[in-house]
Amino acid sequence: MTSAAFTIPLWADLLSIGIGSLQGAMFAAGFRDRRLDLLGVAIIGIATGFGGGILRDVLLSQVPAALQTNWHLIVATGAALLGMLLERIFHRLRHLITVLDALTLGLFGAIGTTKALSLGLPVVPAIFLGAISAVGGSILRDLLLNLPIALMHVSSLYAVAAIAGATSLVGLVALGAPIATAATVCVALTVVIRVLAVLFSWTLPEQRALAWR
Amino acid sequence: MTSAAFTIPLWADLLSIGIGSLQGAMFAAGFRDRRLDLLGVAIIGIATGFGGGILRDVLLSQVPAALQTNWHLIVATGAALLGMLLERIFHRLRHLITVLDALTLGLFGAIGTTKALSLGLPVVPAIFLGAISAVGGSILRDLLLNLPIALMHVSSLYAVAAIAGATSLVGLVALGAPIATAATVCVALTVVIRVLAVLFSWTLPEQRALAWR
Amino acid sequence: MTSAAFTIPLWADLLSIGIGSLQGAMFAAGFRDRRLDLLGVAIIGIATGFGGGILRDVLLSQVPAALQTNWHLIVATGAALLGMLLERIFHRLRHLITVLDALTLGLFGAIGTTKALSLGLPVVPAIFLGAISAVGGSILRDLLLNLPIALMHVSSLYAVAAIAGATSLVGLVALGAPIATAATVCVALTVVIRVLAVLFSWTLPEQRALAWR
Repeated sequence: MTSAAFTIPLWADLLSIGIGSLQGAMFAAGFRDRRLDLLGVAIIGIATGFGGGILRDVLLSQVPAALQTNWHLIVATGAALLGMLLERIFHRLRHLITVLDALTLGLFGAIGTTKALSLGLPVVPAIFLGAISAVGGSILRDLLLNLPIALMHVSSLYAVAAIAGATSLVGLVALGAPIATAATVCVALTVVIRVLAVLFSWTLPEQRALAWR
Repeated sequence: MTSAAFTIPLWADLLSIGIGSLQGAMFAAGFRDRRLDLLGVAIIGIATGFGGGILRDVLLSQVPAALQTNWHLIVATGAALLGMLLERIFHRLRHLITVLDALTLGLFGAIGTTKALSLGLPVVPAIFLGAISAVGGSILRDLLLNLPIALMHVSSLYAVAAIAGATSLVGLVALGAPIATAATVCVALTVVIRVLAVLFSWTLPEQRALAWR
Repeated sequence: MTSAAFTIPLWADLLSIGIGSLQGAMFAAGFRDRRLDLLGVAIIGIATGFGGGILRDVLLSQVPAALQTNWHLIVATGAALLGMLLERIFHRLRHLITVLDALTLGLFGAIGTTKALSLGLPVVPAIFLGAISAVGGSILRDLLLNLPIALMHVSSLYAVAAIAGATSLVGLVALGAPIATAATVCVALTVVIRVLAVLFSWTLPEQRALAWR
């Protein structure tokens, strides 16, 4: 199944990366007991904002899109420093940021899935790459901070929302829907699942609850 | 030294990945104090089963073979969930699984080494890539679980068996042996070293025992 | 901005990798409470010596230069084992090694930045890749040892020196300077900043000292 990649305007791409980077820096700045310096915060911001796209492009054997303009690194670094300096203010906006982050999750998932399809990958790896694009930044952030990977533990359907969105996109494209429609449904479904999961504390079952004994 | 790559039938490839993934999930499910959810266990399974092949292909600047069919991800995810649900049963089969895992170690080593040779890499990097293919999954598993990398610590010649197998393969190919013969010797040598090391608790010397003082 | 890559003779490349690997192994051998074995020390040495170049080439979607000769892996492994066995002797030479390491930092930064420029990347990503080439080994070392990433914490301008050097190189090339001149300035600036920072304990501000509250 080969189809066109879904692309978004540069400003929307930069805004998404900025939101990811801002969140990563706020997260890093929350650790009062670690002596992260300015550069450490910038690295966490860049890794959170870029990580998903970089993992996606490395797995697709391409030079990462984020390294092909000057803007991506400038926006990610700027947003990270802003997130660190104004952590208090942004903390008050955390509900808005959760919604924006869910939107970013959906957008990155749609971009990753359609990029994989457009390069001729089968549907299951395309969904996998969409999910990696969406959540890779959060995995890299936790690895670099030497923390347990948040999304592998009981939490509010972060990766599940991305996988559901990517799956809906692949299904709609298989049924012949235009790429823009499929991508829009992917983003909407991701946002709805993620936001409802946060609101109602939906989680996946813990593994030990399921093991047969 | 350029030669043909050693390839195995798809079912053997999928079986190897399934064994790796099953083992990864059983290992992850063994941590009763961590609150891994279903997805976390699936991620660890996929990383353990695929990790070596993905690292190999990323270093060879190719789209990973495991992302070019739908089957690899489906088998890895299924095996991971099975390993989690039936951990108790598989635990009783652990000696069989250790032998199957040694076989997988040898197969992945042979595939990785010959793939590197077939792309024109020199012999030392080819051995290195064979070893990475064989043990990369276990490294990724430990990184994602935030554990010390098991194979760097005093243990039962896991990577050493893979390196010895890959070295024998490269030597035999240099002497003109057919690729299938060289690969068979590689697999056999890897299995023998690994199984004997587990049986007799052979280990590499600890670094502090050797340092001159 | 496309220009020629700055290359150094093979012996200088191998010497740089050897110094990185030696340092990585000495660092690993310093942990008396961890039971790293011979292989573990070799892996840390290789990762420290090679890591930056491998991350650079993976991001540039190329087979790593270090995997295209037999020498790189042999030198890195040999230097790692030497660093482990003769840790005491090298420890007495640690001031010399700090200077040599600063030189390596500058060289890797110049090679990475010019390689990125020669492949047509814009200036900001080129500086980023120069910095990754210079400090990537130290990041990989800390990840594999399950330690907090040293360079993200308050410390002696390790990455800052590399970024400043790479920035000077890009600026001089933009002004029309020959690549060899620009690379020489890059190396000199990196060494001067790094050595002065170690001598006078210069650091970046800690993030919590800056956050507005």
